[in-house]
Amino acid sequence: MEQEGAALDVRAADDGGRLGDELARIGYAGSVPCPAASAPHAYVELHIEQGPVLEDESTVIGVVTGVQGISWTELTVTGQSAHAGTTPMQLRRDPGYVAGEIITGVRALARAMGGTQVATVGLCNFQPNLVNVVPSSVTLTVDLRNTDEVLLQQAEAVFHELCTRLAADEGVTIERRTLARFEPVQFHPDMIGLVEATAERLGHSTRRMPSGAGHDAQMLARVCPTSMIFVPSVNGLSHNIAEYTLPEHIAAGADVLLQVVLARAS
Amino acid sequence: MEQEGAALDVRAADDGGRLGDELARIGYAGSVPCPAASAPHAYVELHIEQGPVLEDESTVIGVVTGVQGISWTELTVTGQSAHAGTTPMQLRRDPGYVAGEIITGVRALARAMGGTQVATVGLCNFQPNLVNVVPSSVTLTVDLRNTDEVLLQQAEAVFHELCTRLAADEGVTIERRTLARFEPVQFHPDMIGLVEATAERLGHSTRRMPSGAGHDAQMLARVCPTSMIFVPSVNGLSHNIAEYTLPEHIAAGADVLLQVVLARAS
Repeated sequence: MEQEGAALDVRAADDGGRLGDELARIGYAGSVPCPAASAPHAYVELHIEQGPVLEDESTVIGVVTGVQGISWTELTVTGQSAHAGTTPMQLRRDPGYVAGEIITGVRALARAMGGTQVATVGLCNFQPNLVNVVPSSVTLTVDLRNTDEVLLQQAEAVFHELCTRLAADEGVTIERRTLARFEPVQFHPDMIGLVEATAERLGHSTRRMPSGAGHDAQMLARVCPTSMIFVPSVNGLSHNIAEYTLPEHIAAGADVLLQVVLARAS
Repeated sequence: MEQEGAALDVRAADDGGRLGDELARIGYAGSVPCPAASAPHAYVELHIEQGPVLEDESTVIGVVTGVQGISWTELTVTGQSAHAGTTPMQLRRDPGYVAGEIITGVRALARAMGGTQVATVGLCNFQPNLVNVVPSSVTLTVDLRNTDEVLLQQAEAVFHELCTRLAADEGVTIERRTLARFEPVQFHPDMIGLVEATAERLGHSTRRMPSGAGHDAQMLARVCPTSMIFVPSVNGLSHNIAEYTLPEHIAAGADVLLQVVLARAS
């Protein structure tokens, strides 16, 4: 809980201003201690799924069991820039080829592990990025997520072994930098059960599922019983102007939220 | 020979100026017809290898037998942008993954064909290129080269089949655009033999080899007996500030060039 105790002491990266002082200056400082002397009674959060699972299974309510752990790594692969016409295949040290093996390798890793394991290469930059030049270096990122910390560590280990083997085989160097690392969060069994029972009582189809994205609930889960309610995202889209959820799904989610709050407050 | 006949009629892309008129305007128009009424007697060109083969084999003189055919393709792979945390592997249509399979696939193609076949992905751009987003599209280029036109066509066919299969398997579209396509050029056997015999008579180690890069010689080969002389490039580098060839190798190449010209002129 050290981060929470220090929240008001956080200083801005630019001018060094202290959060607590700045809140007081603009009139936003509350009177309740931070962290509060007593934790909230419970926390429940309604959100769009931001993924395609509910829509794909024609399910209306996602009963969220926790938030996936996240492991983000940036890799810089350095080889030897060379002429694409004059350099025989066996004399190449090609970081683009190694990037290709990493991209396909993390897909294979996720498929082999199954369960909630996902793996994504979303960013990839070739240097010098020319048609007829074997690249000198490639930077790419690998995003690994799992709801189970042990399995997430296992995925990281397999990924690191892959990098080590590829670097040796192709004669390139691979620098690894951790961009982010969060352990998985498990929501409270009572709150999960309450969301599920309430949705079923209201006549909605349900499925238990983890959240692949981060939410306020993962922070509140540290201090009080917490869960979340998901409703479908059309085509699984979010953070996108095409993001949309059907009005009847929004209404269903709001009904479940209301009844869960009423049940918990009674 | 249609291109050569039309050389003076080529027009600039910007202001439409005609090459022949512009040469006359700046005083650079020659008096000899283009193409010339009679072809040159012969053509021989001395060049650095621009690749690592001679250095790797400790050979001083490369006897160039021809120029590789070149096939350049730009691919635009379009899938579905999605959240890296919330989208299960089996619901992804990931153009980055397909790019990875193409990168590793063309390496496998070149290794399987062997001989002079080379294959390179030198350019690759992800969109939107963010750590936690499955890309919406990826643009990449594939550079295929072979000294044999039939084999080059075979490489292109294997590559096209790979793209078709990947597009179907992952549910993405792949647009193909040809950026360049040149057939291989074979130099004249008499000129190849003269370069080889001359280098050996002067006491230099030799090996026959194709050129992976384009040269003036490939144009002259259309109209007169042609060959080329290669000397080693340190670390195979060219088009790079680190490009270097040892003085003794430059001298060896110049000696061979002189003796070949003298032999051909006598």
